[in-house]
Amino acid sequence: MTATDSRIRELIVTPIAFRDPPLLNSSGVHEHLALRVILQLVLADGTVGLGESTGGDVRVERLRAAAQTVVGMDVFDTTAVSAAIDAALQPTVPSSHERGWTTSAVEVACLDAQGKLLGRSVSDLLGGTVRDRVPFAAYLFYKWAGHPALDGNPAVGDDWGEALDPAGIVEQARLMQQRYGFRSFKLKGGVFPPDEEIAAMRALAEAFPGRPLRLDPNTAWTVKTSRYVARELDGVLEYLEDPTPTIAGMAEVAKTSPMPLATNMCVIAWEHLRPAVEQNAIQVLLTDHHYWGGLRRTRELAAVCEAFGIGLSMHSNSHLGISLAAMTHVAAAIPNLDTSCDTHYPWNSADDVVVPGALELRDGAVRVPTGPGLGVELDHDALERLHRLYLDSGMKARDDTGYMRRVHPEYEGKLPRW
Amino acid sequence: MTATDSRIRELIVTPIAFRDPPLLNSSGVHEHLALRVILQLVLADGTVGLGESTGGDVRVERLRAAAQTVVGMDVFDTTAVSAAIDAALQPTVPSSHERGWTTSAVEVACLDAQGKLLGRSVSDLLGGTVRDRVPFAAYLFYKWAGHPALDGNPAVGDDWGEALDPAGIVEQARLMQQRYGFRSFKLKGGVFPPDEEIAAMRALAEAFPGRPLRLDPNTAWTVKTSRYVARELDGVLEYLEDPTPTIAGMAEVAKTSPMPLATNMCVIAWEHLRPAVEQNAIQVLLTDHHYWGGLRRTRELAAVCEAFGIGLSMHSNSHLGISLAAMTHVAAAIPNLDTSCDTHYPWNSADDVVVPGALELRDGAVRVPTGPGLGVELDHDALERLHRLYLDSGMKARDDTGYMRRVHPEYEGKLPRW
Repeated sequence: MTATDSRIRELIVTPIAFRDPPLLNSSGVHEHLALRVILQLVLADGTVGLGESTGGDVRVERLRAAAQTVVGMDVFDTTAVSAAIDAALQPTVPSSHERGWTTSAVEVACLDAQGKLLGRSVSDLLGGTVRDRVPFAAYLFYKWAGHPALDGNPAVGDDWGEALDPAGIVEQARLMQQRYGFRSFKLKGGVFPPDEEIAAMRALAEAFPGRPLRLDPNTAWTVKTSRYVARELDGVLEYLEDPTPTIAGMAEVAKTSPMPLATNMCVIAWEHLRPAVEQNAIQVLLTDHHYWGGLRRTRELAAVCEAFGIGLSMHSNSHLGISLAAMTHVAAAIPNLDTSCDTHYPWNSADDVVVPGALELRDGAVRVPTGPGLGVELDHDALERLHRLYLDSGMKARDDTGYMRRVHPEYEGKLPRW
Repeated sequence: MTATDSRIRELIVTPIAFRDPPLLNSSGVHEHLALRVILQLVLADGTVGLGESTGGDVRVERLRAAAQTVVGMDVFDTTAVSAAIDAALQPTVPSSHERGWTTSAVEVACLDAQGKLLGRSVSDLLGGTVRDRVPFAAYLFYKWAGHPALDGNPAVGDDWGEALDPAGIVEQARLMQQRYGFRSFKLKGGVFPPDEEIAAMRALAEAFPGRPLRLDPNTAWTVKTSRYVARELDGVLEYLEDPTPTIAGMAEVAKTSPMPLATNMCVIAWEHLRPAVEQNAIQVLLTDHHYWGGLRRTRELAAVCEAFGIGLSMHSNSHLGISLAAMTHVAAAIPNLDTSCDTHYPWNSADDVVVPGALELRDGAVRVPTGPGLGVELDHDALERLHRLYLDSGMKARDDTGYMRRVHPEYEGKLPRW
């Protein structure tokens, strides 16, 4: 077998928007559209690799700069491709975490293209699978019944209903379980005073005995409040996620917390690992291939966690099927990624950009696609429709706080809040 | 492109021996033959992946057990292949480091087979190269002029000559430079009293001003002696390698050492990383894909070093071309493996098992082979000859101390010695 021409001819960057329910969190509430960006990495021979990342004009512009950088490079040189993008962004983007969003998205597209070129799945390129089904957790949110009427647009409901108290959360969890068979549950907290969220977790524990439960208030609490909640939920939570800001704050909470602390907020770049370990700030890292440098770097990050006795789980943002496929491949390849992963997919899958059939959330898990590359195919009509939705929206960035203020003008963005 | 049948049909394990000069070290002296083992991993379609590792009957037997374990597994499932071998060995081999020798050898053979199947180089499977030439250091040894006459065998000289003092070491370094263009130098120490080895390093510094120099006494010294040598060689050494045994001992030396301390002896398995970091015992890790789990695991190890600010270099044992190719591919793929690597190749290359042409040590570096897989081809006649040499030798394990005692019966194996 001889190698085909595997140089990158073009990187097509397409910003999109898709419908999103009014999910509440510590910064406000999800707007009626979520922004995302789809990558098509075209090789000299016409092979196309897919990528997906968070949207917003700033990140889209960086991906367009990356597109200029990578043309002519070999798609197998993923390390060099990432380094070239990183170097190109460095003068204007000082944060390595922020640069990581760009390099990561391109790396996934490179691996998808490699797999398609070679006739092998992305997980094969990562060392093969150690599990053929990747378990995900039901991602529960406090939410309004629907988006309110605004700007002359009518109110928009959804088939999940309102969830603003423990009973609403338990009902949502039951729906999640019925529809997708989830066996573990995570609540996005930081929305109501801590005692209400403690009550919600206790209600979930009663409704789903023995199921792993997690609570993520997105740094809504002080160290003192975090310690109080941790004590109250002893025996209830599998882990407590990002109760308070900063590595130092987490380390303070960890000293007395009866359960492991997890993060996807205070350890989000390679240079954060050393201080986090030195301060024993976290016991579980929620990795995210979208900013840790891609799928190979996620394996490397898993090795760091293995070496330092840190547990591993996976973070999610609002996403579609290309990201779900990538998350599934990498999670299937990493032995110590052995807790269920987060996913927003049930909230957004109706607007997917991939051809249906390759991905299914069933019994709380996704079977690893076996086709070449990521194993998913782009639905070009859907892409066009979602791109138009983005253009028509006029939206430039996610703004949960601003949206909340339009409905509740008295709302104050404040972290920690309690 | 559709995937071919990539299951493993057979793993052929061939112990070999090859000629080795009388190289002195802290445990004695190299025997006239070095033991090694060559792997041929045969896939269902006949594709063959090559591997090479240290020999000796114990390790050969473990590889034969691994051969039973991996038949029928998919060659792309390298993580699962390693896990299966590890699990099979666990009841009888408690040391994870020792099990690592076996899993590593098979992983390299898997990657070579993958590359051959896909028409891509092993470095492509590791994320591509970030350098197309990998620099190596001249590996200097105190040595006798030749092997003495023993057991009715005649004395055997070589074209390196004797090196038993500073002048001899400088002369050997000049030969190494002339023949291979090396630009950095490492002396295997721990042979003579420390002041004699300090003198040798100073002589090298004078003869090769500005060239990186290293000294490796293989734990021949106490903490006190190590601190003394480190002080004396301030400004002379790039790093000091394994002056004293154990992580705790190295940490004591590191407290006062003016130069970085390196190791391939006290941090040799994943569970050693955490204590080494916590005690700040080492500043440079000499990785070795032969025991850290293979080439992908070496990349992961490099990420651990990156995250914790540990420098990276590469260890070598007596080896032939399959190992050199693997070392070159992985070193070319890892951005932070940016110091020259160790290699014994000049001492042993005359007996190579690979067809000449793919590997050349020139200007102190090896160009990364570009052919599929490792880019080297097995010389079956050479393999047969070296296998016969092994069988005829009756040797079962390396024994530097025993060999030294046959020549100098008063020699005592003792570490640390000074």
